[in-house]
Amino acid sequence: MNREEIFKEISIKNDKKILLVVMDGLGDIPYYHGKTVLEIAHKPNLDALAGISELGSVIPVLPGVTPGSGPGHLSLFGYEPTKYEIGRGVLEALGLGIDLEPLDIAIRGNFCTVKEENGKLIVVDRRAGRIPTEENVELCKLLSSKIKCIEDVEVSFTPGMEHRFVIVLRGENLGGIVEDTDPQKEGLPPKDPIPVTEDAKKLTEILKKLTAEIREVLKSRKYANFVLLRGISRIPNIPSMEELFKLNPCAIAVYPMYKGLAKLVGMKVIDVNGETISHEVEKLKEVWNEFDFFYLHIKKTDSYGEDGNLSGKVKVIEEFDRVLPEILKLKPDVLVITCDHSTPAILKGHSWHPCPVLFYSPYVFPSGADSFTEKNCLRGTLKVTYSYELMGLMLAHSGKLIKFGA
Amino acid sequence: MNREEIFKEISIKNDKKILLVVMDGLGDIPYYHGKTVLEIAHKPNLDALAGISELGSVIPVLPGVTPGSGPGHLSLFGYEPTKYEIGRGVLEALGLGIDLEPLDIAIRGNFCTVKEENGKLIVVDRRAGRIPTEENVELCKLLSSKIKCIEDVEVSFTPGMEHRFVIVLRGENLGGIVEDTDPQKEGLPPKDPIPVTEDAKKLTEILKKLTAEIREVLKSRKYANFVLLRGISRIPNIPSMEELFKLNPCAIAVYPMYKGLAKLVGMKVIDVNGETISHEVEKLKEVWNEFDFFYLHIKKTDSYGEDGNLSGKVKVIEEFDRVLPEILKLKPDVLVITCDHSTPAILKGHSWHPCPVLFYSPYVFPSGADSFTEKNCLRGTLKVTYSYELMGLMLAHSGKLIKFGA
Repeated sequence: MNREEIFKEISIKNDKKILLVVMDGLGDIPYYHGKTVLEIAHKPNLDALAGISELGSVIPVLPGVTPGSGPGHLSLFGYEPTKYEIGRGVLEALGLGIDLEPLDIAIRGNFCTVKEENGKLIVVDRRAGRIPTEENVELCKLLSSKIKCIEDVEVSFTPGMEHRFVIVLRGENLGGIVEDTDPQKEGLPPKDPIPVTEDAKKLTEILKKLTAEIREVLKSRKYANFVLLRGISRIPNIPSMEELFKLNPCAIAVYPMYKGLAKLVGMKVIDVNGETISHEVEKLKEVWNEFDFFYLHIKKTDSYGEDGNLSGKVKVIEEFDRVLPEILKLKPDVLVITCDHSTPAILKGHSWHPCPVLFYSPYVFPSGADSFTEKNCLRGTLKVTYSYELMGLMLAHSGKLIKFGA
Repeated sequence: MNREEIFKEISIKNDKKILLVVMDGLGDIPYYHGKTVLEIAHKPNLDALAGISELGSVIPVLPGVTPGSGPGHLSLFGYEPTKYEIGRGVLEALGLGIDLEPLDIAIRGNFCTVKEENGKLIVVDRRAGRIPTEENVELCKLLSSKIKCIEDVEVSFTPGMEHRFVIVLRGENLGGIVEDTDPQKEGLPPKDPIPVTEDAKKLTEILKKLTAEIREVLKSRKYANFVLLRGISRIPNIPSMEELFKLNPCAIAVYPMYKGLAKLVGMKVIDVNGETISHEVEKLKEVWNEFDFFYLHIKKTDSYGEDGNLSGKVKVIEEFDRVLPEILKLKPDVLVITCDHSTPAILKGHSWHPCPVLFYSPYVFPSGADSFTEKNCLRGTLKVTYSYELMGLMLAHSGKLIKFGA
């Protein structure tokens, strides 16, 4: 029996409630003997909770591997992230709040600039000089008005930031894998859509016609006169959290990508009226009686980490600390506070460092630690290695697993 | 995606330098409350470095499994050692410094003593009374002069210690698996070469003819008058460190087996003019600008461990400690000091005990420990379980991995 089969067999429903707080990018490092944000932040409530919780550290994918948001979250949701790949097109679509259906093809598009040379196109600028987002919006509007279908396939264009946009194809028999058309280097012709698998014949034909039609629409322009297609993908076939763990889960998140990731595993996404942690917690209280698993996503720890803004990151932790008593009043049976990956401010980006975990339930071995810090977590007693292993513990501590084997 | 596919996809080249120091058999145990060699040795430089490094313990193969040098090293080089088997013939050949080509067959031979009974051979002594090495050398010379080819297959004989020697077969279509001819017990006839797989037909025929010819050459002798063949094998098909991790690695080692193991994974082997650690470090400095991964092998910790010579092992650690400042002057971006397996002096042999690891880079959580000892390592914060997982961390800490997934 593999892990998923075991959980399918031994998980049961009850009314105990699990709250998973993901402070995106929370983990930090003490670069050259400095302090981490968790060591700097004034967070009396988190520290008190740490003392009666189990602390631990988890690896999202593999030791040394820095995860994107997709694998980082899948792992926290209880899925082995190397088993389910989320294509770039799909992730971009989720990030723009596009509602994908299971067989849709999502493609990350870049507006680019090409020139004609001896009847051939050559890519002059792969990002069309990073055109302003407003121009992108106009171009997507234009393309949407001119190209609605290719054969029996519906086509839609959704603008992202600067030169990035998303194409969604909806139709029958769009199976298979097709290569990116981005040549990755300027001075080369854009690649034709090339099928990687045999079942990609129709998809390849549609993409060829689509790129030809897009070129027709844009060809009179001096720049941003063509597109390059990347990450041509569909939603991975992920069993839902209901199917694997018998959970009735919901997601409270502000940013579209995290709502989208939650939808991929079958969570109900709750709309939040506002952007602060308090707004999210208000919503959590409102829906507390309706679900048994709550994923609460806090974005700004990661955003400030990416900006290298250490004090900004500290403030988000302090902001969360102030609302923690409100959360505790809900009396979750299991409360886990962790992150999808570390984003050390000093590195200005995601990193491979293990994620600190605070795991609270009445059935833990209390750490007795005086604070919630990476170091205390690295030396903690929570006996898990990978993020996806937390799910088993969350289910167990809330009485949602029966005995395995007689 | 499996682990190797992931690293192939996310590894990149840069000019950061990784130094992996393998103190062979370093790990020790505190037998009946005694002290380990790492606890006894006076090693101020290692201890100071331990304080600003992450400490940890790694398992080469599986908990409880004592590795040979092959699996122990493969694991440190980033390969799951259960995935790639190095046959005994190949390992012996590497140990004798024989340059194997990819399709060569390497065989560990034992000179043995047989008698004829009713026209049948019976093994009287499987090791021919452990003949002196000098006699072995003479016998191999004799065989080499009499047997150069079997059909179109080149044959060579290389003496090892006592009764042990290596046969290499070089020719076409020598595929498949053939059983050992050693009956494992005296009083039984030597086994015929028996094919295990269908493609081993030619190899089996060659081996039958070879053993018959060897018997012809030796049959007038009273002892050491035949041979038994074991570990009939070829180089495992291991992807190189360049292929998997995009590294340009080199090996600095004195003993042939370690040079051979390094070659198996595509390292460039650097010749050392001398046998001491200082000689090795001199060479390290010389080639420092030419590579991005350096495997530095120190043999004597293991040799003294195997001899049960505790103070000898202590002295090797102290010798290394004295040259450590020279190594640190090179400013490696990542420095890892560990072993391929433990060789506790009290056990006089390899053991299953986890290997102590000192992992230094600017991006670690410093241990603050006052010394580099097994105990501090077992309680350390380096979040890995198996030796082969160190590679991901070495690559990450030197900026050689991009993000996994979007």
